[in-house]
Amino acid sequence: MEFTRPRGTRDFLFDEMRERKKCENTLRKVFETYAYQEIKTPLFEDLKLFTTKSGEQIVDQLYNFTDKSDREITLRPEITAPVARLYINELQKTAKPIKLYYFGSCFRYERPQKGRFRQFWQFGCELIGAKSPEGEAEAIAMAEQSLEYLGINTAEIHINHLGIVRGLFKHFKIDNEIQEQVMILIDKGDKELFEKEILEKDLVEDSNLNSILKDILIKIIDFVGNEDVLIDVEDLLNDYEETKDSINEFKELINLLKSFNVSNYTLNLGIARGLDYYTGIVFEIYIPELGAQKQVAGGGSYNLVELFGGEQVESTGFAFGFDRLMNAIEHNSKNMNKIKNKNNNKNDNGDEFEEESIVDVFVVPISNEQREKSFEIGQKLRNSGISTEIDLSRKKFKKLLNAANKLNAKYVILVGKNDLEKDSVTIKDMASGNQELVAIDNIKEFLNNNIFD
Amino acid sequence: MEFTRPRGTRDFLFDEMRERKKCENTLRKVFETYAYQEIKTPLFEDLKLFTTKSGEQIVDQLYNFTDKSDREITLRPEITAPVARLYINELQKTAKPIKLYYFGSCFRYERPQKGRFRQFWQFGCELIGAKSPEGEAEAIAMAEQSLEYLGINTAEIHINHLGIVRGLFKHFKIDNEIQEQVMILIDKGDKELFEKEILEKDLVEDSNLNSILKDILIKIIDFVGNEDVLIDVEDLLNDYEETKDSINEFKELINLLKSFNVSNYTLNLGIARGLDYYTGIVFEIYIPELGAQKQVAGGGSYNLVELFGGEQVESTGFAFGFDRLMNAIEHNSKNMNKIKNKNNNKNDNGDEFEEESIVDVFVVPISNEQREKSFEIGQKLRNSGISTEIDLSRKKFKKLLNAANKLNAKYVILVGKNDLEKDSVTIKDMASGNQELVAIDNIKEFLNNNIFD
Repeated sequence: MEFTRPRGTRDFLFDEMRERKKCENTLRKVFETYAYQEIKTPLFEDLKLFTTKSGEQIVDQLYNFTDKSDREITLRPEITAPVARLYINELQKTAKPIKLYYFGSCFRYERPQKGRFRQFWQFGCELIGAKSPEGEAEAIAMAEQSLEYLGINTAEIHINHLGIVRGLFKHFKIDNEIQEQVMILIDKGDKELFEKEILEKDLVEDSNLNSILKDILIKIIDFVGNEDVLIDVEDLLNDYEETKDSINEFKELINLLKSFNVSNYTLNLGIARGLDYYTGIVFEIYIPELGAQKQVAGGGSYNLVELFGGEQVESTGFAFGFDRLMNAIEHNSKNMNKIKNKNNNKNDNGDEFEEESIVDVFVVPISNEQREKSFEIGQKLRNSGISTEIDLSRKKFKKLLNAANKLNAKYVILVGKNDLEKDSVTIKDMASGNQELVAIDNIKEFLNNNIFD
Repeated sequence: MEFTRPRGTRDFLFDEMRERKKCENTLRKVFETYAYQEIKTPLFEDLKLFTTKSGEQIVDQLYNFTDKSDREITLRPEITAPVARLYINELQKTAKPIKLYYFGSCFRYERPQKGRFRQFWQFGCELIGAKSPEGEAEAIAMAEQSLEYLGINTAEIHINHLGIVRGLFKHFKIDNEIQEQVMILIDKGDKELFEKEILEKDLVEDSNLNSILKDILIKIIDFVGNEDVLIDVEDLLNDYEETKDSINEFKELINLLKSFNVSNYTLNLGIARGLDYYTGIVFEIYIPELGAQKQVAGGGSYNLVELFGGEQVESTGFAFGFDRLMNAIEHNSKNMNKIKNKNNNKNDNGDEFEEESIVDVFVVPISNEQREKSFEIGQKLRNSGISTEIDLSRKKFKKLLNAANKLNAKYVILVGKNDLEKDSVTIKDMASGNQELVAIDNIKEFLNNNIFD
């Protein structure tokens, strides 16, 4: 019988896993620099948690099932709702603001396609219970610094304030259901499609007001640019009092971004984020060279806790699509390899990542008689934290040297009869090819001086 | 509507999460020192993978379900079978031996009880394709070093060779089904129960042979001690040729353990590990003070790949029950706190873990006017990797100092009007209470000298 891994999932092998851990740890480092602390929630939750947040139609995209006690549960599709649940269960009495971050896998049942998997990873954060503009500016600054530390310098940060369009809806007294339809249309990000579909819709009964509103909507989602965009927005919406607070909040954020040293951002009135629990500032980050999968992060301010039956509390959060970040890093690294290969005409093996030493040392017995002595030497090195491989398969000398090369060992310790008579071994530096006779008692010192210099 | 987390699962908050990451990273460090490399497999697998390995009855303990395309899948109950599947899919042509490790959550559907959860974590490794005794000795050494690095020094390593009992079965021509029944009985670890139940069984038809075998089995599972135990085993089994190879392998392992610097182990002929894919050496690690949940690791040599339709390949592996290791660490830490509290009569707050600095620095504006300047200063520190908290909630000065204390900040930077006129701030060392006026341009240097001294 043939076993394969489930459709839409992945196995991560050595090199890829190493690169993923580097990325994960870089993000941890940055988030902790901003005083965020890590938490973890279960892989599955009550199905109702997600249908309450996103509506019944989300079930089609879930790995939901009934457990052996007839509970309706689901593998989590995202981690914002579990965090709100966690807050209500355990953190309501904790001093605010609360800053937490998470890294974990999520699941969606959908046709697997390039860059979209059924098990995928999110790295995100939530700021709970802080006044918004500072928290939003800080979140955007943290996202920008994360990308910088990952070596990604082609990202674009697009920011919007949903209160502007919501204010218009309020002014024109638009029905809630129609509001959501329009937001979903905006969220598709296809301006031609939006124009076509919105013109076919009746947003309000009065045909005059209807065409005024449609006209404004079509214009507004096209505002994309630097902070001067807000001047045009104010001009266009001058008559609509209900939009003014949001425009001022937007200005305040833009102003704060300067204090947070963020200069690389775009105002984009065409961002909607689809979900109706977002209330104010929203932002998305794109890496254009990733094509259809270019969005690597999304977030904003919202009130989810109240939706789940808790007290109202201001929250701001965002999440990186971890797998897409990895795509961007891989893309970068391929480009860098191309440049490197062009420059020195070698190592054109298409390796996506840099070759690394898996171990510092490989201990090689010259013949079978030195096997046990080799184990002793290797074990002593390991006990002092030096990564060391030994021969577990009773291989011939030459094969062991090949194995050492494969692991990219920095040093090979040759354990031979003659050297042992002098209580010594020969240590070979694999980069230079130099060999040196070293007393067994001095191996650790010799390596420590050379590996960590 | 009230949302709670699913029965038998846990949320991990800040302190606990930090301790878990420390443990996880310590294990990673040790395993990598032994040239093991990390991999990751999907959270769910084809149900058949686990029923093939462990029999249909395992389904009762699984979170299994049918996906939207009628595939029978299950959340994984353990990671050895997925690794064998991964090997067959992707690693058969890789040079041997292959050394891989994994850390991830597993799931079992059973009554939650103290120390047993429905989502739990395993940290384990597999050595694929190496001659056994060296690989087994190395695995035991690595387990021992892991525990040592975690500060756990009460662990007992119990080792057995299943070939001895299997050899007896062969000699007496015991039916396979009865063999498994006996192994499961041994695995229960209750010697009185074993004696009672085995005496009621007919192992072979011949009543004379039946009582001889029973007599040997009852004696043999009682052999527990140092290497001298093997002398008694050889005496007892002198007439049974089929056990000799295994006894010699056992001796060879014990001998190799010396080369690997492992001296703290117990030979225990009463270990069975229940599953019939184990073929030779098996071992379990106990931490007695954990009571009913004392087993923190189990492993041995086996042939699972062949069972899944691959070529025969020797494998050795073991896994730590990560949650139980955390229990042991917590147990240790409580004991240490008790001793500490006895000695200095303070800090008797029952904290399980040491208090840590969440941030190095808290930047506090003395009044609202210095808010933006404070953000600038904080942001500069973060950009140079110094973990820094700022005020996101427009709190009063005194409340901010409280917040800084809660985060255990090492330094508070006071940003006030008078100091700013001299382009300076006041930096307060929270441990000593000392304050110093520092030019804004020199903050980083000042902190770097003090934090990382």
